[in-house]
Amino acid sequence: MVYKFTNTKYIPLLVFQLILMVLYFIFVRYGGDKHHDVRGFEGTHVMIFIGFGFLMTFLKKYCYSALGFNWFLAALVIQWALLCQSFYHMTDNIIYITKLSLLEADIMSATVLITFGAVLGLASGLQLLFIAIVEVAVACLNFWLVADIFKVADVGGSIAIHAFGAYFGLGVSWALRSRKTKSDPATTTPTVDLGGPSYNSDVTAMIGSIFLWIYWPSFNSGLTNSNSEYQRAVINTYLSLAAATVTTFVMSSVVSKHHGKLDMVHVQNSTLAGGVAVGSVCNMHIGAGGAIAIGIGAGLLSVLGYRYLTPLLTKLNVPDTCGVNNLHGMPGIYSGLLTVLFAALATKEEYGTDLFGVFSAMDDKGLGRTAASQALYQFFALLVTIVVSSAGGIITGLLARAPVLEPLKDHERYDDEINWELP
Amino acid sequence: MVYKFTNTKYIPLLVFQLILMVLYFIFVRYGGDKHHDVRGFEGTHVMIFIGFGFLMTFLKKYCYSALGFNWFLAALVIQWALLCQSFYHMTDNIIYITKLSLLEADIMSATVLITFGAVLGLASGLQLLFIAIVEVAVACLNFWLVADIFKVADVGGSIAIHAFGAYFGLGVSWALRSRKTKSDPATTTPTVDLGGPSYNSDVTAMIGSIFLWIYWPSFNSGLTNSNSEYQRAVINTYLSLAAATVTTFVMSSVVSKHHGKLDMVHVQNSTLAGGVAVGSVCNMHIGAGGAIAIGIGAGLLSVLGYRYLTPLLTKLNVPDTCGVNNLHGMPGIYSGLLTVLFAALATKEEYGTDLFGVFSAMDDKGLGRTAASQALYQFFALLVTIVVSSAGGIITGLLARAPVLEPLKDHERYDDEINWELP
Amino acid sequence: MVYKFTNTKYIPLLVFQLILMVLYFIFVRYGGDKHHDVRGFEGTHVMIFIGFGFLMTFLKKYCYSALGFNWFLAALVIQWALLCQSFYHMTDNIIYITKLSLLEADIMSATVLITFGAVLGLASGLQLLFIAIVEVAVACLNFWLVADIFKVADVGGSIAIHAFGAYFGLGVSWALRSRKTKSDPATTTPTVDLGGPSYNSDVTAMIGSIFLWIYWPSFNSGLTNSNSEYQRAVINTYLSLAAATVTTFVMSSVVSKHHGKLDMVHVQNSTLAGGVAVGSVCNMHIGAGGAIAIGIGAGLLSVLGYRYLTPLLTKLNVPDTCGVNNLHGMPGIYSGLLTVLFAALATKEEYGTDLFGVFSAMDDKGLGRTAASQALYQFFALLVTIVVSSAGGIITGLLARAPVLEPLKDHERYDDEINWELP
Repeated sequence: MVYKFTNTKYIPLLVFQLILMVLYFIFVRYGGDKHHDVRGFEGTHVMIFIGFGFLMTFLKKYCYSALGFNWFLAALVIQWALLCQSFYHMTDNIIYITKLSLLEADIMSATVLITFGAVLGLASGLQLLFIAIVEVAVACLNFWLVADIFKVADVGGSIAIHAFGAYFGLGVSWALRSRKTKSDPATTTPTVDLGGPSYNSDVTAMIGSIFLWIYWPSFNSGLTNSNSEYQRAVINTYLSLAAATVTTFVMSSVVSKHHGKLDMVHVQNSTLAGGVAVGSVCNMHIGAGGAIAIGIGAGLLSVLGYRYLTPLLTKLNVPDTCGVNNLHGMPGIYSGLLTVLFAALATKEEYGTDLFGVFSAMDDKGLGRTAASQALYQFFALLVTIVVSSAGGIITGLLARAPVLEPLKDHERYDDEINWELP
Repeated sequence: MVYKFTNTKYIPLLVFQLILMVLYFIFVRYGGDKHHDVRGFEGTHVMIFIGFGFLMTFLKKYCYSALGFNWFLAALVIQWALLCQSFYHMTDNIIYITKLSLLEADIMSATVLITFGAVLGLASGLQLLFIAIVEVAVACLNFWLVADIFKVADVGGSIAIHAFGAYFGLGVSWALRSRKTKSDPATTTPTVDLGGPSYNSDVTAMIGSIFLWIYWPSFNSGLTNSNSEYQRAVINTYLSLAAATVTTFVMSSVVSKHHGKLDMVHVQNSTLAGGVAVGSVCNMHIGAGGAIAIGIGAGLLSVLGYRYLTPLLTKLNVPDTCGVNNLHGMPGIYSGLLTVLFAALATKEEYGTDLFGVFSAMDDKGLGRTAASQALYQFFALLVTIVVSSAGGIITGLLARAPVLEPLKDHERYDDEINWELP
Repeated sequence: MVYKFTNTKYIPLLVFQLILMVLYFIFVRYGGDKHHDVRGFEGTHVMIFIGFGFLMTFLKKYCYSALGFNWFLAALVIQWALLCQSFYHMTDNIIYITKLSLLEADIMSATVLITFGAVLGLASGLQLLFIAIVEVAVACLNFWLVADIFKVADVGGSIAIHAFGAYFGLGVSWALRSRKTKSDPATTTPTVDLGGPSYNSDVTAMIGSIFLWIYWPSFNSGLTNSNSEYQRAVINTYLSLAAATVTTFVMSSVVSKHHGKLDMVHVQNSTLAGGVAVGSVCNMHIGAGGAIAIGIGAGLLSVLGYRYLTPLLTKLNVPDTCGVNNLHGMPGIYSGLLTVLFAALATKEEYGTDLFGVFSAMDDKGLGRTAASQALYQFFALLVTIVVSSAGGIITGLLARAPVLEPLKDHERYDDEINWELP
């Protein structure tokens, strides 16, 4: 084996950790205890570290990397995201943090982990860490635009977190795509071999998938502001997820190539699309039937995406290992378009009260916008998110090709061997 | 391989999902936020989807089906159970749902998952879905009888959920039993081979078992009505589970055929019997010592059941793959008989106050029954539950033999191959 | 195979369970509902039974024992610890228990599970159970000294739980060390072979490790007394863990023997050292930057310990299978020394208010000690804990060598075969 790693390759990350420490010493203080009992923190914490981590263990020989890098990235990113997010809300150059800040940092780290899913097995550790640090800064800027400037409805983050993370990831994936030469087909063989699951790895992936599913109502309802808004978010997410799950199983069989057999890829992922699809509207008065309808649509969209769109994207040089476009991307756009629709349909009376939980969510009940105007803002926020994330991902991915970040050779893909001491 | 599945086999389930959607649009509205902070929801949610799902992964080549069908069934059933349960409590033909409704739906879905455990590996996906839909309707009717008509104590559902699910399952199992012909013994060989665990599958089953154990106090205390009743339910369940666990380990060694070696089947299941056994009485003033005594009895009963009764039932054409009779059935009856005993022993003074949390649980403190009368009601509720569940299970199982539901051939049992794309 | 176990070997444990039952009947009553909503119970419960259990499944053929004995020990110990702890706070010879008592029992059981980690695979089931029962009695005595007599700051238990459990464990380990004879080297071969992980066992160990990490803020903040103190404990633990995790990954690569490859042992364990290191001071005004600094130090200390100290200890006849010295021992001492430092640095003004959450934690705001005096008490508490635990561990370990407890032969180490029916 060629000696290619030096033992100091991660030292820049330790330097970054020390810089974070200094920034925290200078700028961060404890806030009051107003948010000490913020809802949804523990569940979201499980989603980020167990949910995303184990969901990505489905590859047969990339489980250590999936779990390890998920943890490494998220532990770094939550510290960094807390600063980047709070940058827009400083008081006298001081950041006051509460338990709510931790929840927001956890939620922001989902963006990075979704992007990680797109390039799972295709990027080196150093590339991932570089991408994560850049992505958080861009995502927090976009989040500020969406939430504070456009003031749009997106309580569950389907626009600013899920769609952003997915299209940033696809941008990176395209930029990092391998430039194969026809002259050396032999080296790609191991890649093909490792790029799939084993029986055991599909079972451990279900740990992540089911925990994500269980706590998704906590995730979507974490940033609500009243008890009734909170309860609506929980009920709607619960029902949408249930309907998406039933639809996923049915559709997985319908599109099967082998006698209607079920596909674990669909079961592990499309079941969750109901949580994304309802995310931006889950605190609104969409009704229990509406939540189920949204979930059915999400299951349909996601399974069809995995079956027909992902292979097409791969051919177009946009590999998407976990299919984040089908779980986070398209369902995120779907949720964003629902906010446009519901805003446009709002009557004046409904408008100022409950249809958009976003008004209370922003402690700003007097925006004074018309329904059509709010619908345009919603549409604009979605569009800006897709453009910023895609362009940001492509640029970041191109920068990440720098040799100093040790890009993977084709035969090193999907393989724990290069990063881990194996038994 | 014979082509036997068409890709449209699950389409009727999608139709059922669409019908559910329409019913929700018509009948369901958001309730007030009185129950937005209902206790025990998150824990029970983990039990249903992680707990039951992973507990059933102990079979070496049925992990995909255990996890997948557990999820498919539960996602369908929670939507259906919410309607069936609320049917008995409609206001002006409208169902008002709160977070409490979700908890109740989760709890009701346990019934179906217990039944699934009895016939694990023995029924096709279509059979399971048919059984689940019928069972929920019958179980909700029985629940209404037990809770609203007989007005009995059963806060943790040991009678109406655990015993019901177990005996419904045994009824189904008997009705679905294979009619072997002596002429073809060879085909049963693979069944014997797959009907057990591997080292890995026993480890993943422990994920389910331990999470069930951890959140059982949440399950049993979820429907309590006061802080002190809630705390009693948590303390009693915690202690009963701990005592049952110690007893299970000791007894597993005592009844061992090989030098006192421990058996994973006991450890994964009988440890939990303490939660079932204390379920119906956990909100009463049974005392910490009483809770431990109940747990010790549950451990004894359950291990002896696995060791001696399950093999006997199998011979009697009632296979019970997960041994639900030992984990849910007999401990449920045990808990029901404890309610009879405690009701009979009640003095008038204790009676109206705390001995039966059931009175406060029903917001109906003035039932005006004597101790003997209440004891008879308790006994009657237990009896009716066993009769309704067994008979319901047998009839449902016989209907499920219809060829359209694609019953399994003997050599297809315990095998993911027929339902799943395998790596 | 030689017949060496009788089926009655665990019967003394059932007798102990019956004695516990009698003691509970006599001495234990339900307390008021003041603590019915104690924070941190559910998370700590997950840590004890899932966290510790799965973390110890990293050995390739000791997963059943890791999960099973973790459960058996903890289920026994929580009942016993609740009595031992409450012994020092009885009212009229009666123990009044609340949900807080259950949390304290869970926390105390961590001591035993840390000790289990030190001798994982090296002790028989009977030895473990004997050690656990003795250890709890000694640990509760030490806890009483530390908390009630010395009245020191240790909200997360880094001194009285983590350091105690680790040094008790190392004491036991030294006492149980194998006395090899040079004449029979062949029998040790299987031990070497089984004393490491497999790919799958390292993945299941991550379940435990990540759940411990997730709920550590709940653990450290469980016994706080005000909302602001609680929130500080959560924030500081969260940040310290994140910083320790980043540092662990970097250092694992730095100290690697093979091209900077990451080591799962570090990732599974040193990531958690940040939770221990900040434990005793997490409720104080250490600042967000301070919490990160402590976490960085913990990651450094722990990885270096695994890399250089554990091999040395093994040579010195103190095997430490899970490396508890690096995860609980040294980080516990580190946390203890931080309390000495922070006490010594306290000005009078800070002293009586917030620097030491310990004052409010003890409902005793008027200790009237000087900063230097409190620093000495802190140091003394740490010293006493180390002496009592080490000596207690050595004596308990020597007693545990009694043949009646069936000590393991060398070739039986790290092997489920002797305790479990294997598939």
